[in-house]
Formats: sequence, C-alpha cells, structure tokens
Amino acid sequence: MSDQFDPVIILVEPQLGENIGAAARAMLNCGLKRMRIVRPRDGWPNARALAAASGADAVIEAAEIFESTSAAIADLNYVLATTARQRDMVKTILTPEVAAEELHARASALQRTGILFGPERTGLMNDDIPLADAVVTIPVNPAFSSLNLAQGVLLIGYCWWRMQVQSEGRHLEIGGNRPATKQEMVNLFVRLEEALEEGGFYTTDQQRPTMVRNMRNLLQRAEMTEQEVRTFHGVIVALNGTSGSAKEKRRPR
Amino acid sequence: MSDQFDPVIILVEPQLGENIGAAARAMLNCGLKRMRIVRPRDGWPNARALAAASGADAVIEAAEIFESTSAAIADLNYVLATTARQRDMVKTILTPEVAAEELHARASALQRTGILFGPERTGLMNDDIPLADAVVTIPVNPAFSSLNLAQGVLLIGYCWWRMQVQSEGRHLEIGGNRPATKQEMVNLFVRLEEALEEGGFYTTDQQRPTMVRNMRNLLQRAEMTEQEVRTFHGVIVALNGTSGSAKEKRRPR
Repeated sequence: MSDQFDPVIILVEPQLGENIGAAARAMLNCGLKRMRIVRPRDGWPNARALAAASGADAVIEAAEIFESTSAAIADLNYVLATTARQRDMVKTILTPEVAAEELHARASALQRTGILFGPERTGLMNDDIPLADAVVTIPVNPAFSSLNLAQGVLLIGYCWWRMQVQSEGRHLEIGGNRPATKQEMVNLFVRLEEALEEGGFYTTDQQRPTMVRNMRNLLQRAEMTEQEVRTFHGVIVALNGTSGSAKEKRRPR
Repeated sequence: MSDQFDPVIILVEPQLGENIGAAARAMLNCGLKRMRIVRPRDGWPNARALAAASGADAVIEAAEIFESTSAAIADLNYVLATTARQRDMVKTILTPEVAAEELHARASALQRTGILFGPERTGLMNDDIPLADAVVTIPVNPAFSSLNLAQGVLLIGYCWWRMQVQSEGRHLEIGGNRPATKQEMVNLFVRLEEALEEGGFYTTDQQRPTMVRNMRNLLQRAEMTEQEVRTFHGVIVALNGTSGSAKEKRRPR
C-alpha cells in the first residue's frame, strides 16, 4: 500500500452520517483515502454516510471503526488534533500549512501520522488532546469561525495535498497551439502599421513612433499563439475591407 | 466601506438556495462579505439561501442581483473565472494561491476585483470566460475533482484570507504561564538526578554522564513552563516517596 504514510483522518464520535460522507468526499478531493472512526453516534455501517460520499464510497467502505481514540491512534507515530477554540492547555499550535509540512516530513521519515477531528457540536474532548503531539487550528475569520466537519477536513486536506502536488502557479493554457515566434509578431506589427498608415491613423509623423511602440507593447502583452497571429492578420484584412465611409469617419482623429 | 477592494464573489446562475447560503457562510469564514448573483434560478430573495447561511445572513441580505454576467462585473477592474475542467481556450490559468496574490496586489493598486463561479451542474458558460482576465483552477485530486460550489468558494476564499492574515506557523500556547528560565530547568535537572542517584538509577559511573545528558535533552524538548517545572518537582517528590519494594524493583536495571 503506497499510501501507508499518508495521514489517517480520524473522526472522533461523529454525529451525522451526512457529515461522515461529506468528510470522505473532501478527503478524496485531496487524495486522502484512510478514514478511521471512533464510536460513530449512529452506528456502522451508516447508509447516509455512503449516500453523502457521492463517489467517495471506497473511503467509507474501507473506514475502520474503533472503541476509543487511543485505540484508533495506537499504531501511529505522530498525531495532530484539530481544535477551533483555544483550550486551557500548554500545547504547540500549528497552522494547517505548517501541519502539512510536518506530516510530509514525518512520512519521509517513514512515520505513520493521523489527524483527529472531534464531534460536530463540541469538537474534541479535552482528554483527547493530550494524546496528540500538537494541535492544528485553521485561522479563519475570528468573527465567524464556525466550519463544518467536512470543511475542516477539506481545508487541512487541501494544505496537505498542495504540498505534494507540484503545479505551476501561473501558466498560459494554449491547447494544441504554440506561442508565436518574434518574427511572426514583427510581421504582424508591420502589416498592422501599414494598414493603419493607409487608414490615416497616424496624424503626424512626430506622433507615429510613440503610437507604434504603444500598439506593439499592447499586442506583446497578449502573448499570442501562432494561430492567433494568423487570425489577427485576417482581422486586419477584414477591417481594411470596410466601406470608404467608415474610413472617412476614422480619418479626422 | 473598508472592504471595497476585497474581491466580490459572483455566483452565475446558481441553482440551489442551499448552495448560495453555504457559499455565503464560506465567504464569511474567509472575511469576504460582498456577494453578487446573476439570474438565480429560483428567484430572489430565497428563504433556503438565508437558512443555509447559518449566521452569514448579512452576506445574503446584502447580495446584489444582476441580469447578466457583464452587468455584474461592469464596475470591476480585474476578474477571475473559476473552472474545474479545461476549456479549449487560450487563457492564463492561476492556482488559488497565485490568484490570491494577484487579488491583493490589485487591491493595493486600488483596483476592484471579482471572482466568477458558475452554476453547480455545468460550471461557467464558455461565453463568460472571455469576460475574465484569467482563470483560477483549484488543483485537487484529478481522479476525484468534484467540489461543490461552497467548497470551491471556501478554498479560494481561504487562500485569499491567509495571505492577508499574519499568523505564526507554529507556536506554543501557554496561556497565563511563562516559559521556564534555564536556571529553573537546571535546578530541576539537579533535583531529578539526585533522586535518581538515590534510587539506584545509574548502574555505573561510566554510564552516568550519558544518561544525564539524554534525560536533560528529553526534558528540554518539552519546553516547560515555570508552572510545569514546579509540577515536575512535585512529581519527583511523590515518586521518591514510593514504597521500598518499588525501589527494590527498580534497582536491578
């Protein structure tokens, strides 16, 4: 099993099957497949959990059930407890981002890890927190910090997932096209400038160089594909073919 | 209004009131308050949206309704479109993290920004995407990438919120206590070592320095508070007061 060092998501005494299902779905969105449940209120299996998983059925079907939190974490080396509110305890508090780093570092060191989530209404019991190495608190809007179970799982799972998935922060999607070469761009510029000249766009020779530079800068910013350059040639031709009266209108500018 | 440069969340033709409400809740979790809605399927106001907002009522009540996407973004300077699947378009694609940077940079430049979310079933229409400057795609598990509307709003909102909120990645929560001083730690070490000596813990003088160093390192790692140091002194006293038979058992090690 290649995911044996991925964090286990441990739901402690979850109340609603719907929330268990939604948590399973959020887990799978983030590539997490291992769920454990401590004393689910409505027993197990739970048809509502399966229905709410909408596609993440395998996570629900493979979920392991335990009688106590300590049994559910017995084989793990490093455990985080999620809490929304501050507890009166001396405990290390991590952001989800730092928790994700820590979980990946532990996995690299072949340690098994898990994240505890408490019941919907109350959160983790005070006695469960000392079983964990540290606490994760999601720093949402302090004026409105209530997150449901699945949203908590989603945010922490996403931070974990993002750290293992390399993706370019910004890229231009160009499908089957290729970026235009600079020769193609210059050909386009020249074609456009000739057409503009013909159309009376440049009112004075003095202004011309500035106007040319501005337009070239604008078109460079568009990062055209080769296909788009060809389309743009067509646009120039089409506009050049407009009626004389339209050209008349343009001339006075 | 101090939030006029915060991104507007624009729901285009949302179907279920529940999802509008859940999106409002996710927005407020991330400190986002400005919602616009284009042609809500079930009309407006929508009682289900208000019920599902569970506390984020103000966001729903202040939501503005528009007849078209272009009307909803008319006063904005920079608009992002969220899409899950790849479209056959030449378009810049951002991760939520880079999108968040971009939105904050635009706000600093006093630009007004917005993020478009499409209908639940289909996502944004192909004609809405060219109205946006760039696309944001949330890089979740490609094998299971379906996120509901509110989860999409939550993840993108969270990335935006995290970038403006400074929070220590890791800190030790110690409540009203203060960290122990090194003098207090050394006093504790000495007390413990004396008690261990007395209890026959150090079998040979040769091993003693290593055993002392190991135990001191262990206790240093616990980053004790002044209160905990005092408690630990009490622990030593209590253990030292155990019956002679318990001490006998320890001796042979």
